[in-house]
Amino acid sequence: MNKIFVTGCAGFIGSNLVDRLIKNKNNYVIGFDNFSTGQHRFIKDALKQSNFSYISGDIIENYDELVYNMQNMDIVYHLAANADVRYGLEHPYKDLEENTIATFHVLEAMRKNNVKKIVFTSTGSIYGETNVHPTPENAPFPVQTSLYGASKLACEGLIEAYCEGYGMQSYIYRLVSVLGERYTHGHLFDFYSYLYMGNSTLVVLGNGLQTKSYVYVQDVIDGILCGIEYSNEKINIFNLGTDETIRVVDSIKWLGEHLKNDIETIYAGGERGWVGDSPFIRLDCQKIRKLGWYPKHTIKESIFATLNYFDKNLWLFKGAKK
Amino acid sequence: MNKIFVTGCAGFIGSNLVDRLIKNKNNYVIGFDNFSTGQHRFIKDALKQSNFSYISGDIIENYDELVYNMQNMDIVYHLAANADVRYGLEHPYKDLEENTIATFHVLEAMRKNNVKKIVFTSTGSIYGETNVHPTPENAPFPVQTSLYGASKLACEGLIEAYCEGYGMQSYIYRLVSVLGERYTHGHLFDFYSYLYMGNSTLVVLGNGLQTKSYVYVQDVIDGILCGIEYSNEKINIFNLGTDETIRVVDSIKWLGEHLKNDIETIYAGGERGWVGDSPFIRLDCQKIRKLGWYPKHTIKESIFATLNYFDKNLWLFKGAKK
Repeated sequence: MNKIFVTGCAGFIGSNLVDRLIKNKNNYVIGFDNFSTGQHRFIKDALKQSNFSYISGDIIENYDELVYNMQNMDIVYHLAANADVRYGLEHPYKDLEENTIATFHVLEAMRKNNVKKIVFTSTGSIYGETNVHPTPENAPFPVQTSLYGASKLACEGLIEAYCEGYGMQSYIYRLVSVLGERYTHGHLFDFYSYLYMGNSTLVVLGNGLQTKSYVYVQDVIDGILCGIEYSNEKINIFNLGTDETIRVVDSIKWLGEHLKNDIETIYAGGERGWVGDSPFIRLDCQKIRKLGWYPKHTIKESIFATLNYFDKNLWLFKGAKK
Repeated sequence: MNKIFVTGCAGFIGSNLVDRLIKNKNNYVIGFDNFSTGQHRFIKDALKQSNFSYISGDIIENYDELVYNMQNMDIVYHLAANADVRYGLEHPYKDLEENTIATFHVLEAMRKNNVKKIVFTSTGSIYGETNVHPTPENAPFPVQTSLYGASKLACEGLIEAYCEGYGMQSYIYRLVSVLGERYTHGHLFDFYSYLYMGNSTLVVLGNGLQTKSYVYVQDVIDGILCGIEYSNEKINIFNLGTDETIRVVDSIKWLGEHLKNDIETIYAGGERGWVGDSPFIRLDCQKIRKLGWYPKHTIKESIFATLNYFDKNLWLFKGAKK
């Protein structure tokens, strides 16, 4: 029996990961989530399976429960995080607390329980505004441009130092933006939400020409599992993204096609959507590709999968304010 | 009048920096120190000058005082830190708290007071065990090998994100080990202390062949001031070290010469002095050298200056335990 602990188990990527892991009946999965952004509905189906249970708790506030429930685990997937890149400057402590300090707590809970393997979802944002495109894992020492990126960089450093110091093993995945079922934040969510509320005009941050890469959530999970299966260094770091890029204007066009709607757009202007927004992200994923992984979905497919999911889950937008 | 705030003002580098800054009567310096490792004796002379005063306080515990006293400052030199690289694994929260979280507090205090310029002393340890020697500032994305390095990396990331997000300017210096007057921790201090207590045999961690670079404290201060004067990017990052390296056995030989003593040594063995010790550190300092800086002291001169300082300040060793 593989005993697997998943933080952020009710989140977008976390809940999809749980669903995948429990398909293997040799896995027993314990989830941990504070439901700050996670949704009970995302783990409803998983709870019908006998090899999943969860604890409602906060990594920092309920540290003792975290330690207690991590007993006898073989591996920790640490996905709990503040994933809100854009509003970091409005509450600068949030990234430090929910990413850096929370990761420290997870590592300490692991150390106390002698759990030796950690999987961590990092971000392509840690490359800041690199001038190496596509960007490989060993790109030149990056300069941070967002509090989110800085906090994830700090997490990576902590994890690496714990591996060196306490004999742990880590799998760190630097993701581009992720799309798919249960995606609940980011520009596509905001656009859909805005139109759902009856607006016909979208206000787009930046000039719409920001070039981004996206990856489908199931492809991310494939990539995570592929790295764990086929790489066995002390510290295993992989980029995960598609080779494609699209522009924000492309996603708006497809949104219009999906809604059969002519969307009027106003561009706020400037190269960046917000301070710290990277105007061009494309990761070099040769390292994970050499292990056999490749993204099975195009960005366009990921966007339509996401929009179809929205159509069937309008409850997501009930709390939306005009 | 330049209004300068120095955290860690009573520490090894901090107090030497204060002495230098207050020589310019156009500078007014306010220091801040919790005296956890800082020494009142180190700022005794500075206090005789009318352009220096200090606050005894802890950056985290006395955050309100930090904010209050940073009013109207033009620049912050943030030198307060846990500089104890070796024992990180015995108290893993210490580096996170005293380096990463403390730096966040300093940045927040700056933001509240609209102070726009920060100088930060980072470390060559953030390059981990890079395979690029000498190591330039834009070396490949490093993997952390110590909690100390990881915490300083996190500080750099936070500072950079604050520069991007809140319009600040930063000067980040990645130092090799520093020697000179008021040096109070590290292997030379430990060796001297051990012999001072009447021991005749030194136990040396590692095989004594670890290759290190050292720089004299006054050269560090020259380098810091040179960078501030001649570089004006938003984020200015410089390595500071000598082109020389020595081995631990060399410093023991010079210690013996200084003490006119045959020192018997026992080597614990292994390439590293401790887990996370980098067996080979040499920084590429071309970037700061292009601005006119160069180290005026050899490593040997720095070591003898330090030993002469010890001879005249035996009070440093009074608390030493056998």
